[in-house]
Amino acid sequence: MLEDKNQERTSLSKLGEFGLINHLTEHFKLYNSSTQKGVGDDAAVISQTGKETLITTDLLIEGVHFDLSYMPLKHLGYKAVMVNLSDVYAMNGVAEQITVSIAISNRFPLEAVEELYAGIKLACDTYKVDLIGGDTTSSTKGMLISVTAIGSAKKEDVVYRNGAKETDLIVVSGDLGGAYLGLQILEREKQVFQVNPQNQPDLDNYTYLIERQLKPEARKDVPELLKELEVKPTAMIDISDGLSSEIMHICKQSKLGCKIYEDKLPLDPQVISTSEEFNMDSTMIALSGGEDYELLFTVPISEFDKIKGNPNFSVIGHMTEANQGMKLVTRANQEMELKAQGWNSFDE
Amino acid sequence: MLEDKNQERTSLSKLGEFGLINHLTEHFKLYNSSTQKGVGDDAAVISQTGKETLITTDLLIEGVHFDLSYMPLKHLGYKAVMVNLSDVYAMNGVAEQITVSIAISNRFPLEAVEELYAGIKLACDTYKVDLIGGDTTSSTKGMLISVTAIGSAKKEDVVYRNGAKETDLIVVSGDLGGAYLGLQILEREKQVFQVNPQNQPDLDNYTYLIERQLKPEARKDVPELLKELEVKPTAMIDISDGLSSEIMHICKQSKLGCKIYEDKLPLDPQVISTSEEFNMDSTMIALSGGEDYELLFTVPISEFDKIKGNPNFSVIGHMTEANQGMKLVTRANQEMELKAQGWNSFDE
Repeated sequence: MLEDKNQERTSLSKLGEFGLINHLTEHFKLYNSSTQKGVGDDAAVISQTGKETLITTDLLIEGVHFDLSYMPLKHLGYKAVMVNLSDVYAMNGVAEQITVSIAISNRFPLEAVEELYAGIKLACDTYKVDLIGGDTTSSTKGMLISVTAIGSAKKEDVVYRNGAKETDLIVVSGDLGGAYLGLQILEREKQVFQVNPQNQPDLDNYTYLIERQLKPEARKDVPELLKELEVKPTAMIDISDGLSSEIMHICKQSKLGCKIYEDKLPLDPQVISTSEEFNMDSTMIALSGGEDYELLFTVPISEFDKIKGNPNFSVIGHMTEANQGMKLVTRANQEMELKAQGWNSFDE
Repeated sequence: MLEDKNQERTSLSKLGEFGLINHLTEHFKLYNSSTQKGVGDDAAVISQTGKETLITTDLLIEGVHFDLSYMPLKHLGYKAVMVNLSDVYAMNGVAEQITVSIAISNRFPLEAVEELYAGIKLACDTYKVDLIGGDTTSSTKGMLISVTAIGSAKKEDVVYRNGAKETDLIVVSGDLGGAYLGLQILEREKQVFQVNPQNQPDLDNYTYLIERQLKPEARKDVPELLKELEVKPTAMIDISDGLSSEIMHICKQSKLGCKIYEDKLPLDPQVISTSEEFNMDSTMIALSGGEDYELLFTVPISEFDKIKGNPNFSVIGHMTEANQGMKLVTRANQEMELKAQGWNSFDE
């Protein structure tokens, strides 16, 4: 529905693989002194003195992870980078480089790939990250993007998933569930559009939700803020699959249980009103929605004073002994088993 | 043609994404002390003290880069790793880690993915490389593999493409053209099979060629050998697209020309006999065939004595001033323009 039928179209085969790579990457700046050599050799060269190197990678596939009928290509490029930077921040690190591999079928003209790279460049410029390599090839069908992010952290600063301690507080940045509801709105509009292409949707009530879905921001500020507050999390993870699924990773790897309090879950007013409109439970959405790219972490209870008043953070529960299980304490003060109903890519 | 219709099939959706990742990666060993944390957190953690980190990535797509009707999955996994390690060795580095992302459609059972990972594991065990992360997802069609390799080298040991000097000798490891002819043989057999499935092919005359295509080996030994010989190349690149295309990268980046001598090109006897059988010019195949994963490098002429007698290396030409262009000197002593006719993924 967002496609402009009159756009100019340049065939990719005109440029060839190396021409395309040059064309797409020539305006990218390098921001980090650790980048010794970027695009243009067999491998990129990174120099970290006295720090650990962090590496993470994600693969986004058309028809599985995104739908180009409502995901503009520029947003897709931006989001593909965010998803990966988020993983570096979740290690309490600084993201410094990315590689981007794309496969595209011939149905895409050069201008489409340029749009995609405009989003990647915006992400690089905003987050001060260097594009240092990748691979560009054709696909038999559709588009896919594989991004690898490289970051660094001092050895003593790296935060793993397995360091939570019993009684640690569970903290989450930002708010939850918006990205999932944004997707529901976009899916609904797509169906309306298929029935009546002349319909002009009024999306004013959903702007925050749609932005959370189409243009998520990785929480680069959280590791910075924690450093300022002199708080080192004991465990940290980013929320890609949903809060339940992520807290379960921390519990499992730290060999502990947890209690999450329903009334502490941070929800945007649009999440509450739109959940009602869709007749869905906002708690369920906050727990299982996914794609929020907020950070979930645990801190010793002694750090509560540093965290409590901060508008970026919500304390939503605490860790427990493993034999107490993973529990949600409802508003009615009932304990329920937490279930991971995050997105499972192999469900039929 | 290699599919066993009676194999046991386990659906991927049974395991779920995390179950699948655990199942596939649990038997991988870690070989390198630089690997601080592998699979299982938001990002992997690598520790390089006093060395540069090398990063390279490649994307292989079914129907574009491989054909599962003659590429066994185990070989595919092995080759996907080789393609990337080769890039690290081409920087004169040591490969130490890989990440592997795969997307697979539901038509593949678990057993197929296990085969793929058996090949990846064989590559890791043979080359002493650690699997440290990746992403596993479903695709709407076919299979794809995205591998990123991470390596290291001392700053002073890294060899780029841009360091060649005028009069430097051009050297290639191994022999050329085998992988391309192997592919021709496999394509021919596929067509024969489609016409007559009962036909038992006799491939005895082509074993080397088929192995070059299906099970290439990255030249880990070349940087080691060069260190022993106390030779540091001035420029180096791996041969993935074909000799012509690769030497042109060195020329362009080093701002020089070159002369390659037809009679110096290293050809295996099977390459010569099979070229004749296919009525193709073996020189053309050596120059443009691609996928040989040999290393092409330049050394100062003063190092000739260290290189000349070595069975791993062939001196095939020398660098020239840029204004002399990039030339092939034929057996008849005629000079021809070198053309890069390597594989171009965007050709229609």
